[in-house]
Amino acid sequence: MAESNALPLVLLSEQFAKLPGIGMKSAQRLAYHVMSMSKEDAEAFAAAIVNVHKTVHLCSCCQNYTDLPMCPICSDVRRDHSTVCVVEGPKDVSAFERTREYKGTYHVLHGLISPIDGITPDKIRIKELLGRIDKGGISEVIMATNPTVEGEATAMYISKLLKPLGVKVTRLAFGLPIGGILEYADEITLYKALENRSEI
Amino acid sequence: MAESNALPLVLLSEQFAKLPGIGMKSAQRLAYHVMSMSKEDAEAFAAAIVNVHKTVHLCSCCQNYTDLPMCPICSDVRRDHSTVCVVEGPKDVSAFERTREYKGTYHVLHGLISPIDGITPDKIRIKELLGRIDKGGISEVIMATNPTVEGEATAMYISKLLKPLGVKVTRLAFGLPIGGILEYADEITLYKALENRSEI
Repeated sequence: MAESNALPLVLLSEQFAKLPGIGMKSAQRLAYHVMSMSKEDAEAFAAAIVNVHKTVHLCSCCQNYTDLPMCPICSDVRRDHSTVCVVEGPKDVSAFERTREYKGTYHVLHGLISPIDGITPDKIRIKELLGRIDKGGISEVIMATNPTVEGEATAMYISKLLKPLGVKVTRLAFGLPIGGILEYADEITLYKALENRSEI
Repeated sequence: MAESNALPLVLLSEQFAKLPGIGMKSAQRLAYHVMSMSKEDAEAFAAAIVNVHKTVHLCSCCQNYTDLPMCPICSDVRRDHSTVCVVEGPKDVSAFERTREYKGTYHVLHGLISPIDGITPDKIRIKELLGRIDKGGISEVIMATNPTVEGEATAMYISKLLKPLGVKVTRLAFGLPIGGILEYADEITLYKALENRSEI
């Protein structure tokens, strides 16, 4: 965009390029697209961006994004409030909700422990999880972080904090993905699938 | 995003999904990213969107986007104002400028003739091109639209309008791309490369 004739277009494409997964070339294309939108549509787009910051905040209970004082899941009496599924981010809540099988509640950490990136345990929402357990009524905490180094470390760290409190801590099962082909599975997945085998 | 707990986030991801090349899943990810930005950064992003519509308009001469009354290329006395390169959109101007070889000026059509999509010749900036030629001083018009059906049709249509005005009309050369492999070239490109062969 250095070749562009209009500085505001350069500035807008730089804004787009800051978004994850959008390179400089896509950013340029998006900036030109915004220019080709009607003034009203562009203003609606800008307003939507400002609006999420004005109206969306963290649920006072599970820390997920919501525009209500408490999110619909935490305030739903039909959900099982004794089971808490601990996830890295709000996207993971969406993923579990799509299964339509999980009836418990969630706790969103907003990150994983990663000392190399400066993310120490106090930077993520662990304190809030301990607060919920202190209040009582929670019997099981499911650690549903990703099976990565950071996900495993976070799950281990939290489980060590929770066990002395008398809460059952569980971890998601790891194994072959449904529809996956054994031949193409990596060694660690296959080992996990073997290790966690169950009787049929 | 139907599973999201916050309507403003759903609305923002719908705005992102309207952009070209961004599906519903990427749009969700971008909306969550905006939420994770600081309030100031989000406001700067929104302001950049509104700002392009406030300050950027079409150059009175070449119809490219600019925030000045006349774009830097049209107002540059060192450029050759007798040669006009006619392109589909502002992105094509950037592409030619990157070559650093072209010293003439441009004319941006903002589209190609495509009756099937309702884009008749009066919908693109052909009138403005004729106006520039009427003013005199232009000796060559290079038709630099894409080698597609619409690009060819537009080049043909404009060249038929310009020839009676005594202006030399040329078309970009088509052939093998530099660094391309002959074996993988499509038939039409290969035919064009053969047809337009030159003595060495």
